[in-house]
Amino acid sequence: MALLSEGLTQVVIPVAAFVGLAFALLQWFLVSRVKVSYGSSDGNDYKDKLIPGEEEEGIDNFSVTLKCAEIQNAISEGATSFLYTEYRYLSIFMGVFGVVIFLFLGSVKGFSTQSEPCTYNTGNMCKPALANAFFTTVAFLLGALTSVISGFLGMKIATYANARTTLEARKGVGKAFITAFRSGAVMGFLLAANGLLVLYITINLFKLYYGDDWEGLYESITGYGLGGSSMALFGRVGGGIYTKAADVGADLVGKVERNIPEDDPRNPAVIADNVGDNVGDIAGMGSDLFGSYAEATCAALFVASISSFGITHDYTAMSYPLIISSMGIVVCLITTLFATDLFEIKIASEVEPSLKRQLIISTVLMTAGIAVVTFVALPSEFTMFSFGTNKTVKNWYLFFCVSIGLWAGLVIGYTTEYYTSNAYSPVQDVADSCRTGAATNVIFGLALGYKSVIIPVFAIAFAIYVSFSLAAMYGIAVAALGMLSTIATGLAIDAYGPISDNAGGIAEMAGMSHEIRERTDALDAAGNTTAAIGKGFAIGSAALVSLALFGAYVSRAGIETVDVLTPKVFIGLLVGAMLPYWFSAMTMKSVGSAALKMVEEVRRQFNTIPGLMEGTAKPDYATCVKISTDASLREMIPPGALVMLTPLIAGTFFGVETLAGILAGSLVSGVQVAISASNTGGAWDNAKKYIEAGNSEHAKSLGPKGSDPHKAAVIGDTIGDPLKDTSGPSLNILIKLMAVESLVFAPFFAAHGGLLFKWL
Amino acid sequence: MALLSEGLTQVVIPVAAFVGLAFALLQWFLVSRVKVSYGSSDGNDYKDKLIPGEEEEGIDNFSVTLKCAEIQNAISEGATSFLYTEYRYLSIFMGVFGVVIFLFLGSVKGFSTQSEPCTYNTGNMCKPALANAFFTTVAFLLGALTSVISGFLGMKIATYANARTTLEARKGVGKAFITAFRSGAVMGFLLAANGLLVLYITINLFKLYYGDDWEGLYESITGYGLGGSSMALFGRVGGGIYTKAADVGADLVGKVERNIPEDDPRNPAVIADNVGDNVGDIAGMGSDLFGSYAEATCAALFVASISSFGITHDYTAMSYPLIISSMGIVVCLITTLFATDLFEIKIASEVEPSLKRQLIISTVLMTAGIAVVTFVALPSEFTMFSFGTNKTVKNWYLFFCVSIGLWAGLVIGYTTEYYTSNAYSPVQDVADSCRTGAATNVIFGLALGYKSVIIPVFAIAFAIYVSFSLAAMYGIAVAALGMLSTIATGLAIDAYGPISDNAGGIAEMAGMSHEIRERTDALDAAGNTTAAIGKGFAIGSAALVSLALFGAYVSRAGIETVDVLTPKVFIGLLVGAMLPYWFSAMTMKSVGSAALKMVEEVRRQFNTIPGLMEGTAKPDYATCVKISTDASLREMIPPGALVMLTPLIAGTFFGVETLAGILAGSLVSGVQVAISASNTGGAWDNAKKYIEAGNSEHAKSLGPKGSDPHKAAVIGDTIGDPLKDTSGPSLNILIKLMAVESLVFAPFFAAHGGLLFKWL
Repeated sequence: MALLSEGLTQVVIPVAAFVGLAFALLQWFLVSRVKVSYGSSDGNDYKDKLIPGEEEEGIDNFSVTLKCAEIQNAISEGATSFLYTEYRYLSIFMGVFGVVIFLFLGSVKGFSTQSEPCTYNTGNMCKPALANAFFTTVAFLLGALTSVISGFLGMKIATYANARTTLEARKGVGKAFITAFRSGAVMGFLLAANGLLVLYITINLFKLYYGDDWEGLYESITGYGLGGSSMALFGRVGGGIYTKAADVGADLVGKVERNIPEDDPRNPAVIADNVGDNVGDIAGMGSDLFGSYAEATCAALFVASISSFGITHDYTAMSYPLIISSMGIVVCLITTLFATDLFEIKIASEVEPSLKRQLIISTVLMTAGIAVVTFVALPSEFTMFSFGTNKTVKNWYLFFCVSIGLWAGLVIGYTTEYYTSNAYSPVQDVADSCRTGAATNVIFGLALGYKSVIIPVFAIAFAIYVSFSLAAMYGIAVAALGMLSTIATGLAIDAYGPISDNAGGIAEMAGMSHEIRERTDALDAAGNTTAAIGKGFAIGSAALVSLALFGAYVSRAGIETVDVLTPKVFIGLLVGAMLPYWFSAMTMKSVGSAALKMVEEVRRQFNTIPGLMEGTAKPDYATCVKISTDASLREMIPPGALVMLTPLIAGTFFGVETLAGILAGSLVSGVQVAISASNTGGAWDNAKKYIEAGNSEHAKSLGPKGSDPHKAAVIGDTIGDPLKDTSGPSLNILIKLMAVESLVFAPFFAAHGGLLFKWL
Repeated sequence: MALLSEGLTQVVIPVAAFVGLAFALLQWFLVSRVKVSYGSSDGNDYKDKLIPGEEEEGIDNFSVTLKCAEIQNAISEGATSFLYTEYRYLSIFMGVFGVVIFLFLGSVKGFSTQSEPCTYNTGNMCKPALANAFFTTVAFLLGALTSVISGFLGMKIATYANARTTLEARKGVGKAFITAFRSGAVMGFLLAANGLLVLYITINLFKLYYGDDWEGLYESITGYGLGGSSMALFGRVGGGIYTKAADVGADLVGKVERNIPEDDPRNPAVIADNVGDNVGDIAGMGSDLFGSYAEATCAALFVASISSFGITHDYTAMSYPLIISSMGIVVCLITTLFATDLFEIKIASEVEPSLKRQLIISTVLMTAGIAVVTFVALPSEFTMFSFGTNKTVKNWYLFFCVSIGLWAGLVIGYTTEYYTSNAYSPVQDVADSCRTGAATNVIFGLALGYKSVIIPVFAIAFAIYVSFSLAAMYGIAVAALGMLSTIATGLAIDAYGPISDNAGGIAEMAGMSHEIRERTDALDAAGNTTAAIGKGFAIGSAALVSLALFGAYVSRAGIETVDVLTPKVFIGLLVGAMLPYWFSAMTMKSVGSAALKMVEEVRRQFNTIPGLMEGTAKPDYATCVKISTDASLREMIPPGALVMLTPLIAGTFFGVETLAGILAGSLVSGVQVAISASNTGGAWDNAKKYIEAGNSEHAKSLGPKGSDPHKAAVIGDTIGDPLKDTSGPSLNILIKLMAVESLVFAPFFAAHGGLLFKWL
């Protein structure tokens, strides 16, 4: 048996979660010490510490800080009101879908309240299917709620931190960095700790009813993953459409037609654009990664419950995924200190290395952490369920499974950086192609995106092969968990980007000096690269998670082979591979249409509001916010329906094999589309920034702002917006969500599915 | 037994082939009656019949026709010299790869010359593996040669017909149409008849050695498909890079920078551009479709040879695929008469309906033809090999298999038309999005391409499900043959496009009147749509063909299930799905780089040749031709190597299961990338044409030429060029070629493959 006793396990997990929560609150407190209303306090007397240039430029500090507070308020209000509206829609969806889950799963045994013989733990009795239906629904609602809270809190701290980052930028780039990074950490730790805690409590409460029926217990828990991921879908898609409609609309009129800078307060879409960063890149990303985390854990728990851990009721070993996550919180806590306390950033060029150091430190520490957890929590040998057979696994196999996931994530992250950072030749080549216009820029950018899938796919394939060979589907699930174990640090780095972006916007709108804007731009540029890395992680983990869920689905549906040579499976594979395209077509067109509406409104305001261009009149920000809100809420429904209905229709009418084909097809195809879309968009963005910054002879020869190559680069950047921030990242959720939904509904499909083939 | 005796079968096939050849020569003769050198003949006295406007514009007829002949000569010489150079490289490749085939296959049984017990026809003795190695190599060389001849003859007739079409346009649009269409028919019938005849003769010659060992005989014949397809790969990729480097380069400087019309003789890249149409769209497309045809036939023959047809030595039933193709020639011959003799085109708007009528007529007639062939050539019941088991099949099952392939092709064709013709809303929406600039145009265009995969994928999936369910892998193979049975008509329609395009170019360069140019433009516009339809067919048939080859490969490699749930297969699937992206990245970047070089050269000439813009000095066409030639020959090697080496490396080191996964993955992913790339490009092209033509209020509001929306549309068109003419169509060959290569090398992989997993 394992070294860690059951009692100790019951202590370790909640303690780690509470430590994470406490750390998040501490960071929040530290951020809150930066006051946004000027002069009211207590050690924040900027006057003494302001950089010389600021005073000389004669900008009135008092009015500037007041303006910051005002803008922050507008952004925060816009974001909060959007999320409230979104959540109102989502609560209806949750209610309806909760009923669907209950009815479908309840009908598996005709709503019987009789106990059933267990499927895997043969010879024992398990709880009735109706109970599983009920508890799955409860878990679904809890997962959805946790996801919503994670996204909402992230947005709150981000809109709380943006103006504070701007103000701190006056003291220096290091101070601003710390503020933005701490705020990101608040989100990262809240999310990781919250996800772990809710799951832990849910399992323990469900156990009161299920007792020794772990099969039913962990089957019901899968609802938690479904809830988390379905909220993430709407968060990502809705937020993605919101942010890019505003961004594209603002750029097309402001930058291209009116030739005013980004984030200029005269642009009517500027508040909507900044709101978008918070609801899309922060709340959306938060829900997405929470979904991955919840699903990976559920997949691992489900497979373990029908393997020797579950059969022998080894609680500590069963909780291995949760203990890994607990260790992750501790590791990330230590890692964060390296950025906030152990090293100090003095100049802008230290920001990016510092962020990248975070990734390496957390990965190295976590590798040791995995070793510790593996050896104290697992028995030295056990068996894992593997499609009808049981595979013997040694505990150190799992060390390799989790670690390989963790390191594959790092490889994907660094590859993404190579293809999207303007420090390397791929982006520089794209920038160079702007010489001959927008067309070559787009051709080179698309080619770059296609090329950038090669290494990540090999990394994922390698991780899959090793972890699958060592511990079957459980190996894949824990590899996904490994990749996500440092989620708190990953999210901190990720959220830091949009916060800096907002801070720059606020500086511009508040009319702060150029020096301040340059500092926030430096932070933002580093944030662009880390955002791309974050997207790489999100996609990589989504691939592993959905494969793990796929394995769990297949096990639960009682399929023993998914043979490509049967027509049912093959057509599933083909149609599944098509779904990412269908989905992308919808989301891209949505962004395009919403952006066209935004363009019309912004043009209308410029044409009809006298004095707007001269800066003497204020634009009507609220109408633009409303256009983005309405468009995103309306347009998120069709792609959402596609993802949610496909498994239900395929399972009910075509049966479990075709659905298995669809899942595999959408997985292998979606990974490519998602990675190439994200990286193409990231590369275009940074190619534009490369020309604008003009930091080398080559870059100078392409610039300055407003030159023909720069204009071509702006076109590429605009095209990339929906690719990298709407379609690409939403595809993660497409592949995960279809898999987890199939897993939850598997008993129904196995019992009553495949109607069409039965009729024929 | 079947109604058709073996003796009659031996007569019917060559007769049909000779009829096809004779018909092609007749068409060639009819085209040749149009004389390019003015006044020398015989019923072609244009002077009498010239349209009034021509004379009035005062264009000297004699000098114009002389100029036409001169330009035709330049294009023909450029194309011939490129193809000769290309074939010189390819002959080296053929030699080397022929040796590889012989050595790999010879080593299966250690180069033993002993007869072996048959694998499928148990109890009998088969020829030694060494003989199979030798005859496969011979078949490979014959297939390669036939492919080269098909492409070359197509290019010859196309460059022969282009100026003749221009000259006939002076008599009216109907005459010009007939000339272009007849020339297309020459290519279509030559290719269909030639492919059938060479295959028929090869089978009969091989039979002299093989006798009753049909297993070995038809195993060797698969080399024919490999040969055809590997030439097609280089033809498509090399030709595609050639044509688009010239086209993009010419457009970027000519249209965008210098504001001179397309095909203006002052543009130094204009000859290279016109040569490109012939080597890419004609020779490349010809090789591609010949490859599909050869591979589909080989896959069907191989599966039949190990089924009851082969075991019982039923020659007529074995020849079913060849008889279907024979019937196809007859059907297409009748169909052609509808366009050339039964109806006469009087105005431009009749062209497109006439071409589309060709598709419907051939499909309807062929459906009847399939019924006849099926009932006379097949016994009423037989068995088909299906992954280790034998499936009982009735003859009318096969009627449905072939027909469903045929009709699925029509559905794909019409869907493609809907998404790429500017008569419908999708392209009009894309044109409308040009209002807000190039960025929205690109976003909408990409979304359109993604959306356009939905219906074709469902059509292919439906065809696969039905034909697979009815007759296992043989069903798929004959469904592919069904789609390709009207290849002569399909190619005639297809080749007609680039010929008209060239005709327009010649009219422009020869300084003919606007009226002539408008007529050729009308032909060209219809040709754009039919080219898109042709690409749809090519991709649809490639999907079916490669699935059939995949099935044959799996059978030959002795695999009984390709289970997605095994890690070996899954990683193959994932990596396979990545390959189309890798391949597209290479080909797009190649076009981009070659176009950049072309741009520099064209700019250099405009800047350094005095009087070039004024039309008083001639540009240096030859340098541009050389740039395209060098670039395409150099750049076709890496993507070619990727396709040719992947199956060899995967099979040798990772084994037959991983290779099966790779084939399935690249198939399901490649179909989507290919369809979306082709349709996005086609839509952009026609959105631009829609604005230029200005035939509606809406279109007028976006134009005229040179307006901002038109400039945005030109950018989209340029981006679409490599997508629709290089990457997209080359992907067909990627998926087919990897499958046929795997099939040919299957015995080697099964015997000696999977080294890496054996070592581990």
